[in-house]
Amino acid sequence: MIDKSREALRAYAEEIRADFERDLQTLVEIPSISSDPSRQKDMFACADAAKAILEKAGAKAEILKTPGQPIVYGRLDHSPEAPTVTIYNHLDVQPANEPEWKTEPFKFINEKGVYRGRGTTDDKGPALSALYGALAAKKAGVPLNIAFLWELEEEIGSPNFKAGITTHQKKLKTDNIVVSDTIWLTRGKPSTPAGLRGLQGFTITVETAAHDLHSGLVGGAARNPLSELCTLVAEMGDGISGEIKIPGFYDDVEILSAEQERDFLNSGFSVETFMRDHEVKSLRTKDPLDLMKRIWAKPTLEVHGFVGGYTGPGIKSAVPGRAEIKLSCRLVPNMRAEKTLEQITAFVKKRIPDAVIQAEARLEAYKGHTSGPLADAIRDAYEFAFGSKPAFTREGGSIGAVPTMEQVLGVPVFFLGLSLPEHGYHAPNENYDWEQASGGIPMFTKYFDSLSKIKK
Amino acid sequence: MIDKSREALRAYAEEIRADFERDLQTLVEIPSISSDPSRQKDMFACADAAKAILEKAGAKAEILKTPGQPIVYGRLDHSPEAPTVTIYNHLDVQPANEPEWKTEPFKFINEKGVYRGRGTTDDKGPALSALYGALAAKKAGVPLNIAFLWELEEEIGSPNFKAGITTHQKKLKTDNIVVSDTIWLTRGKPSTPAGLRGLQGFTITVETAAHDLHSGLVGGAARNPLSELCTLVAEMGDGISGEIKIPGFYDDVEILSAEQERDFLNSGFSVETFMRDHEVKSLRTKDPLDLMKRIWAKPTLEVHGFVGGYTGPGIKSAVPGRAEIKLSCRLVPNMRAEKTLEQITAFVKKRIPDAVIQAEARLEAYKGHTSGPLADAIRDAYEFAFGSKPAFTREGGSIGAVPTMEQVLGVPVFFLGLSLPEHGYHAPNENYDWEQASGGIPMFTKYFDSLSKIKK
Repeated sequence: MIDKSREALRAYAEEIRADFERDLQTLVEIPSISSDPSRQKDMFACADAAKAILEKAGAKAEILKTPGQPIVYGRLDHSPEAPTVTIYNHLDVQPANEPEWKTEPFKFINEKGVYRGRGTTDDKGPALSALYGALAAKKAGVPLNIAFLWELEEEIGSPNFKAGITTHQKKLKTDNIVVSDTIWLTRGKPSTPAGLRGLQGFTITVETAAHDLHSGLVGGAARNPLSELCTLVAEMGDGISGEIKIPGFYDDVEILSAEQERDFLNSGFSVETFMRDHEVKSLRTKDPLDLMKRIWAKPTLEVHGFVGGYTGPGIKSAVPGRAEIKLSCRLVPNMRAEKTLEQITAFVKKRIPDAVIQAEARLEAYKGHTSGPLADAIRDAYEFAFGSKPAFTREGGSIGAVPTMEQVLGVPVFFLGLSLPEHGYHAPNENYDWEQASGGIPMFTKYFDSLSKIKK
Repeated sequence: MIDKSREALRAYAEEIRADFERDLQTLVEIPSISSDPSRQKDMFACADAAKAILEKAGAKAEILKTPGQPIVYGRLDHSPEAPTVTIYNHLDVQPANEPEWKTEPFKFINEKGVYRGRGTTDDKGPALSALYGALAAKKAGVPLNIAFLWELEEEIGSPNFKAGITTHQKKLKTDNIVVSDTIWLTRGKPSTPAGLRGLQGFTITVETAAHDLHSGLVGGAARNPLSELCTLVAEMGDGISGEIKIPGFYDDVEILSAEQERDFLNSGFSVETFMRDHEVKSLRTKDPLDLMKRIWAKPTLEVHGFVGGYTGPGIKSAVPGRAEIKLSCRLVPNMRAEKTLEQITAFVKKRIPDAVIQAEARLEAYKGHTSGPLADAIRDAYEFAFGSKPAFTREGGSIGAVPTMEQVLGVPVFFLGLSLPEHGYHAPNENYDWEQASGGIPMFTKYFDSLSKIKK
């Protein structure tokens, strides 16, 4: 037994530090890249390793089948009468082929409490922080059933998660859900999202000839698929200002209330920190409120890549016969991905009738909760562990599982994230650190303690 | 001795056919890809083989040094009093890495007089057709000095050709030049260009961050280099219609005279043939005159490729930190490449001040000649060999050596091309054929005969 004071919980964290680091090493060194079909063996290996970690911690654990990657499910039960919280994390990771990696991405490096490797912060480190927080809660006698729902398809947009949790709906019954996969604005100042952006990915392909053509012989008369896609996308939105011109695109976007704007302004967001954390050289705006609205409260249209034409050194003056552009829109609460894609499709077809649009990953936006006992428990947990109440901001990114869990399991979803901008979500040299983990463990314990006191 | 009748010259061609095919095989099977630095040995091997072919034909031959690839120079002299014609061809070839090749590109295939392989039509086959035409002229006693100037850097924009011929200016003294590196509009109907388009290649690079960024975390506020380049290029020109919007871009473009338009309309150009030859599915226009103007008499802005972002399957929703776009303009007579690039640079810098513009290959446009005894000799040579006078059209492509030779050697340049659209210049499955070669040999003989009769 340990007591529930911050000191006791921090001492507990130091005591299990070696276990935490060993478990994190185990998970990080399995390249569970869900977007890479050649990694299928690693996906199963990761699920098996996670199940073993849960069992070693004393949980009952099992691997749930879905039509795609498995879900790892574990439970540390107290009693049938006690309320149940489910902690959602994901164990799949982004690819790590960026040339900027300074260490092997799938070799766990512990540099005096800075943990380097793909998946350290997104989302294996936070998953283990929650697990050890739950173990501390058990040791402190908190009367709560704690379940762990670890997905392995988050990075590809959770295509089978809805089918998976629908199949196992009865088993997964819970009173509320907490997701630990979000990022603070800056170290030392916790923040938690009251909304997530969604995502609608898509590609547009134009094919005008059987092969690449000689720009001298045909140039001027021949349609150039790359040129057409440039013009099309520029007409869809100004790629310099970011303003989107597709008719109806902004129709469902909420105007922020004065209170929400105030929350944003009080969040501790700093343009300088943002630029430094993301290593950007310049931005579309340097006005803090405009910037926060752009990343949290406004939809986007991004060009992610082109396929077609010549990409070697210098130029090769051929007119490509075919080109594809890869695009996505981030969506904000109230927008529906399907409606947005319909608007885009209508726009594209009007301008280039033979363009082919292919829908890719779709994640709906999520509108979170900022009041009530669960929101208060979030505030208390952060303050207890990190010394200050969190700002309720928004998350510019998307977690497809969130709206799905709220819908299928019928309970609210909250966020207890631990990652920092400099941890490099989806970036080379991803890392996590013991400062966040050792604060996160007491944070989770405090949260579980609060939940155990909320009437079912 | 042979006589100068068409029948005798065609019989001569049949007689030397095996020699012609063996020489073509020798040259085609040397992969003289000037854009590939790893092929340097092949460049020298090709020059040596060409020199040997010239010497076997009885010419004096030598390899001229330039700061880059060598130039092969040969002479079949008659007497110091006789006029001199110089025939320009090039022996370097395009890369041949297109997946659509049905045979080995550097294996010479002779399918009943259809010659397959990279370089067969561009430009090794025409070079040998001219050589055997010159040999026939010698056998027929034509009093003319005939020189062969075979370049090995044409496909990379002749970067050292000017320096090379300037060094050897005295040796290369000639009364006129004929280039055999152009393409008819359609088989059975010769055409010859009265102008070539030029080319100004360039790249534009935008770098906004040290690495790729997470579009959820920064999207909307972060500058997206790919999106910016799309908008920039769309503002430079409508990629769908082809209209260029850079201020001043069209200022120096000649308006075609009614006579030139009539020449175009009488050239035998057919939209259907053009589409079939180039295997295009659709075009920016189907009006024949509009189409001919677009490919011969108007400048272009083409997008050739993008570097940056994600190009694998599906989408990866990162915002690239850096992107490069590869572009070129085809230029028409009277335009100057330097002025055009200045206009473009000013436009780009105004819209994206931190964009970096890098100049690539530059070839000036060339305005040819359609009247006078040399033009008449061209008309007579085609009619003699192929039964109809050629149309004086334009060439949409660029031959950088042409304006250079006119400038450095101070003599006019004419064109006696033999290639056909279906031969696939710069395309997979390039080919040439005996029909064109066996017509081309008497054509050259007739041309040399006419030249010998023009007063110096």
